[in-house]
Amino acid sequence: MFELLNTLDSPDDLRALHANALAPLADELRAFILHSVSRTGGHLSANLGTVELSIALHYVFDTPNDRIVWDVGHQAYAHKILTGRREAMASIRQLGGISGFPRRSESSYDAFGTAHASTSISAALGMALAAYLKGEQRHCIAVIGDGALSGGMAFEAMNNAGLYTDLPLLVILNDNDMSISLAVGALRYHLGELKELIAPASLFEALGFNYSGPINGHDLNELVPALFAMRHLRGPQLLHIVTEKGHGYSPAATDPVLYHSSGKFEPVQGVLPTTPGKPTYTQIFSQWLCEEAENDPRVVVVTPAMREGSGLVEFERCFPNRYFDVGIAEQHALTFAAGLAAEGLKPVVAIYSTFLQRAYDQLIHDIAIQNLPVVFAIDRAGIVGADGATHNGAFDIAYLRCVPNLTIMAPADENECRQMLHTALLQDGPTAVRYPRGKGNSVTALSAFTPIPIGKAEVRRYSSQPAGHRVAILAFGSMVIPSLESSETLDATLANMRFIKPLDGALIEELARTHDLLVTIEEGCVMGGVGSACLEHLTTIAGLSRPTLQLGFTDEFIEHGLPEELLGACGLDAAGITSSIQTFLARQSLEVPLNGSASHADVLRAQA
Amino acid sequence: MFELLNTLDSPDDLRALHANALAPLADELRAFILHSVSRTGGHLSANLGTVELSIALHYVFDTPNDRIVWDVGHQAYAHKILTGRREAMASIRQLGGISGFPRRSESSYDAFGTAHASTSISAALGMALAAYLKGEQRHCIAVIGDGALSGGMAFEAMNNAGLYTDLPLLVILNDNDMSISLAVGALRYHLGELKELIAPASLFEALGFNYSGPINGHDLNELVPALFAMRHLRGPQLLHIVTEKGHGYSPAATDPVLYHSSGKFEPVQGVLPTTPGKPTYTQIFSQWLCEEAENDPRVVVVTPAMREGSGLVEFERCFPNRYFDVGIAEQHALTFAAGLAAEGLKPVVAIYSTFLQRAYDQLIHDIAIQNLPVVFAIDRAGIVGADGATHNGAFDIAYLRCVPNLTIMAPADENECRQMLHTALLQDGPTAVRYPRGKGNSVTALSAFTPIPIGKAEVRRYSSQPAGHRVAILAFGSMVIPSLESSETLDATLANMRFIKPLDGALIEELARTHDLLVTIEEGCVMGGVGSACLEHLTTIAGLSRPTLQLGFTDEFIEHGLPEELLGACGLDAAGITSSIQTFLARQSLEVPLNGSASHADVLRAQA
Repeated sequence: MFELLNTLDSPDDLRALHANALAPLADELRAFILHSVSRTGGHLSANLGTVELSIALHYVFDTPNDRIVWDVGHQAYAHKILTGRREAMASIRQLGGISGFPRRSESSYDAFGTAHASTSISAALGMALAAYLKGEQRHCIAVIGDGALSGGMAFEAMNNAGLYTDLPLLVILNDNDMSISLAVGALRYHLGELKELIAPASLFEALGFNYSGPINGHDLNELVPALFAMRHLRGPQLLHIVTEKGHGYSPAATDPVLYHSSGKFEPVQGVLPTTPGKPTYTQIFSQWLCEEAENDPRVVVVTPAMREGSGLVEFERCFPNRYFDVGIAEQHALTFAAGLAAEGLKPVVAIYSTFLQRAYDQLIHDIAIQNLPVVFAIDRAGIVGADGATHNGAFDIAYLRCVPNLTIMAPADENECRQMLHTALLQDGPTAVRYPRGKGNSVTALSAFTPIPIGKAEVRRYSSQPAGHRVAILAFGSMVIPSLESSETLDATLANMRFIKPLDGALIEELARTHDLLVTIEEGCVMGGVGSACLEHLTTIAGLSRPTLQLGFTDEFIEHGLPEELLGACGLDAAGITSSIQTFLARQSLEVPLNGSASHADVLRAQA
Repeated sequence: MFELLNTLDSPDDLRALHANALAPLADELRAFILHSVSRTGGHLSANLGTVELSIALHYVFDTPNDRIVWDVGHQAYAHKILTGRREAMASIRQLGGISGFPRRSESSYDAFGTAHASTSISAALGMALAAYLKGEQRHCIAVIGDGALSGGMAFEAMNNAGLYTDLPLLVILNDNDMSISLAVGALRYHLGELKELIAPASLFEALGFNYSGPINGHDLNELVPALFAMRHLRGPQLLHIVTEKGHGYSPAATDPVLYHSSGKFEPVQGVLPTTPGKPTYTQIFSQWLCEEAENDPRVVVVTPAMREGSGLVEFERCFPNRYFDVGIAEQHALTFAAGLAAEGLKPVVAIYSTFLQRAYDQLIHDIAIQNLPVVFAIDRAGIVGADGATHNGAFDIAYLRCVPNLTIMAPADENECRQMLHTALLQDGPTAVRYPRGKGNSVTALSAFTPIPIGKAEVRRYSSQPAGHRVAILAFGSMVIPSLESSETLDATLANMRFIKPLDGALIEELARTHDLLVTIEEGCVMGGVGSACLEHLTTIAGLSRPTLQLGFTDEFIEHGLPEELLGACGLDAAGITSSIQTFLARQSLEVPLNGSASHADVLRAQA
C-alpha cells in the first residue's frame, strides 16, 4: 500500500520518476487522501479533484523556486503530501497539527497562505513582478477554481496582470463546475458550455491573457505536456483544465457538497446520514427565515455562494424567486442587498463573520450611511475550529460596532437567536445578529415570535455577597452559558447583555454602582470589542470608573483545533472564566489600592 | 444667461421640450456648471463630461420612477441641476448645503447614494429585481466610468446580472479614458482601442450583456435615439458611450486631472498654479518615499488609481518600474502587495483611510495573518471636508487596531510623519502610519532619518497642579497640536502618544497613578478607538480604574463642510477640547463620588 508514494519525500524524488510512473502514483495518492481524510475529517471532494494537477505541477515546475499559489487552498492536500507532509497528514486541522490550508510557516513549498477565495492571482502577480525586479527567473502559478473566479478581486488581478505582456505568470483555471455549492454567474454558465468555447476564451483574452484549453485535468498525458508547453511561453497564460470534485471515489463524485468538508467516516460506507438531534444555530436561522418568508413576501435572502453552509437549501426550495446566490462575491452581495432594501424589500444577508470582512466598505458606504434596513445573519461568529485562523469570526464586534446606524445583537441561546432575528427584521435600519458555529445550549426555539426590546439586557442572576465582594459578569452571546456556571461558582451577578449596540447603559451603570468588579466577556477579540464599549459608556458617558476585567480573545490569531479545545485555551469556558476572575481579584489585592488616591471629584467636593 | 435652463424645475419640464432644444440646453447647462463650480469649487472635469448624458437620460426615461444610479457620483451635477437643485448648487459641498454626491435623503431622483467607485451595477441590479418581485415596471440604469469598471465588484455584479436574461437593466459605460488619474488595466487598454471593438464587446457578452456602441456621448442626436432604443430591449444591456472629461472648457479638457476636484477659480484664467507653501502631509510622504527608494531598491509602491491624490507623480517619474498603479482595485492592491512582500520587497501601499475599508479582509487574511512587512501610508485619516460622510477617515483606528501583528502610528506633525514612515519601513511586520488631509503644524520635516522607538510616547508638557487637580491628556496624531493649546489653558499634562498599537502602557499607567483625570483624544471614532485601547490597558492589564474622558467622533456620520468647521463642530479644536474637559470636571463634582464606595481591593486589604 502506497509503495511508490512512500518513496517520495520531496518533489525532487517525484521529478526523478519516469513519466509512466505518474499515473500509478496518482492512484496511490488518491487512495492515500481518501484513507487519510476518512480518519481525520477534512476537505475531500476538492482534494480528489486535484491529484493529477498536483503531481503534474511539481513534476513539470521547479518547486519551490517556482511558486504555486493555491486559491482557497483547501484543495492542496496532494500538494502537502508530495512536499514532505505525508506523515503530518494524520494531524491535519488538529490542535498542534498541520493546517488544512497552505501556510508559509509550514513549508517552503507553500509560497503563499490562502483560505478565503480569489486571492491567488493577485499574490502570484506580486511574486512574478518581484522576481522581475530582483532579476530572478521563476514561474509564478495561481491555481484557481471556477467558483473563486466570480470573486471580483480575481478580475481586478487579471485586469492588472494583462498589462505585463512579458511576465511568466500562469493561471490554471480548475473548472469543476462548482465552488463549494454550485457555482453561479453568467461566466460560470459560459464555462459550463464546453462546446461553446468562444465566450471564456474571449473573456480572458480581453483581459490580456493567452487562453489554452480546455484539457482533461485527470489525464496526466494531457496535463504534463500542456504544462511543459507553458514553461516556454511568455506573458500571462490561462490554462483551462476540467476536473471532477470527488474524482475516483464515487460517493464524493456523486455528492461533492456532502464531501466538501466532512468528519471522519468509513470509506466503504461513506458518510452516513446524521441522526437528527438538537438543531444548530444555522438550522434555527434556516427555519426562522422560511417562517418569516411565508408571512411576508418582502423577505428575500442574499448569500455569497454558501447555500448549504448558511442553511438556505430549504429556503431556495420554497422561495426560489426570493433566493439570491450571487456567487463568491461578498462586496456585490451587500450592495445588491442595499438595492433591494432601497426599493422596500427586506433582504437578509446570510454570511459568515470572516467573509463579512470582504464587504466592510459596502456595509459602511452602501448600507449604514443610507441607513437601509438590511438584516445581517452573521454565522460562525467566534471560534470555528478546524479551519483555524483564517476562518475565525474574531473581529466582527470590533469592526461593526464603530459603524453608526447599526444595531447588533448576540443571542445567549437558540431561542433568543430566533427572537433576535425576528426583532432585526422589524427594524428600520441595518441590524445584525451574530451567532456561533454549531449548537448552543440546545434549548428549544419557541415558535411564537416575541420582539426583544432594543437595547435592553436581562439579569440572569444576582450576587448575594455583601458590598465589597460583589462581582458582576456582563456576558454577551455565546458566553452567557459558560458565564452562568462561573457566576454560580463565584456567587456573582450575571447579565445576559443581548445587545452589543445599543448597549444597555442604564444596567451597566446600575451594576457599576452596586458591584465592586465588572467582568465583560465575549467570544471575540478584546481589542475594540464590546467590553470596551462597556468601558466607554461607563467612563465617558456615565462618568464612573470601576475595576473592570475584559475577557475574550487576546491579541493574536487563534489556530485550528476543536472548538472546545480552543475556547478552553482562550479561557472562555466556565473553568477559565472563574479562574480569570479569581486571579484578577487576587492580583488586585496585592497591588496599590485601585481607588486609593484622592480623586479629582473628591477634591472638588471637599472644596465646595 | 441660462434662459432655457431657468425654466426647468424638474425633468417633467425637460421632457416637454422639443428635441431640437436639447443641444442649446446642453450649452447652457455646461456654462452653468462651469459658472457654479468656479464659485464653489468641486468636481469639474467629470461633470462637464456628462452634460449631454444627463439631459438624454432624463429626457428618455421616466425619472424618478425609472432609477438612475451614478457610479462614484461626482459626475452627477448636471443631474442635480435638472432635478430641482439648480439654486442649491451654490451651497454644494458646504456645511448645511447639498452634497457633492447623489443622496437618497436629498431628492427622490437620487435613487441610490454613491461616492466610492464600482457600486452602481450591484445597486441597480438589486433595484431591478425588487421591481420584478413587486410587479413594478421600471428601468434601472447604472452609469459607470471605465475607471470604476476596474473595481472587482462591478465585475461581480455583471457576472450576477448576466443570469437574468429578461430584466430591464441598463449599464452605461461612460468611457472617458481615465478614472481620476489615468485608468490602467488590460481592459482599459482594450476599451481605448476603439477601432478594435471585438475585445470589449466579447468581454461583456461573455458576462451575459448585450453590447451596443460605442457612440459619441456628446452628440445628443446619437445619444437620445440610442437610449430610446434601449427602452425596448429586455435583459442586461451595456451601452458604450465615449465622452471627454472637461468637455467644452478647454483648460479642463486639456488637464482633466487638475480640474478633477478644484477650489474656486476664475473661469477666464482657469486654476492658477499655487505658490509653493509649506508642504501637506501627502507631499511629506511623497518626498520621503522617493528618498527611501533612492537608498533601497527593494522599496516599491502600490496605489489603487490615486497617483495624484497620494502624491506619487514624482515617484512614478523617478522609479517607473517600481510604481504599481493597479486601478481602482483596493482588494487586489493589498494582496498584490502581500505577494511583493512575500518575495522580499518592501511594498508601500499608499491609500486613503476610507478606501482601505475596501480591502479589510485582504489586510487581515493576506497580510496580517502572514505577518508580511507591508507599509500602509494611510492618507486622509480623519475629517476630509467637502467630500463628506462617504470619504471621512473615521473608522481606521477602530477597524485596524483589533488586528493582530499590526503596528499603527499617528504623527503629531510633518516631521514626525516622515520619521514614522521611515520607522515603518524598518519593521518586519505590517505597519501603518495614519495622517490627515492637508497640512499639520507646518513644522519643517528634518532630512535625517531617526527611527522612533516602537511603542514609546513622549510627554510634551507636565501639569504643575497639586494632586487632586491633575489632568493628563493622551493625544494621538493630529490632535496633539490642538491639545497642546488646551493643556496650557488647563495646566494639564500632555502626552503625544505616537503609537496606537502597541500602546505605551507604562506611560499610561504612570499618568493614571499620578493624575486624577485622563483624557484621550483622537481624530477618529470614539467607539473602539484608541481611547478605548487606553481603557483596555488600564483596567484589564494594569488593574487600574481612573476617571477617563474619551474625545473623538461621536457615533454618527459626519457630513460635508470645511475641515475646520467640522472639527469645531466635533469639539476637536483647542476651544472644544478645553470646554469638554471643563464640562466633564464640573459634572463629576456634582455627581456621586467617582470612587466613593469601598473597592473590592480595599475590602480585601482590610481583611488581610
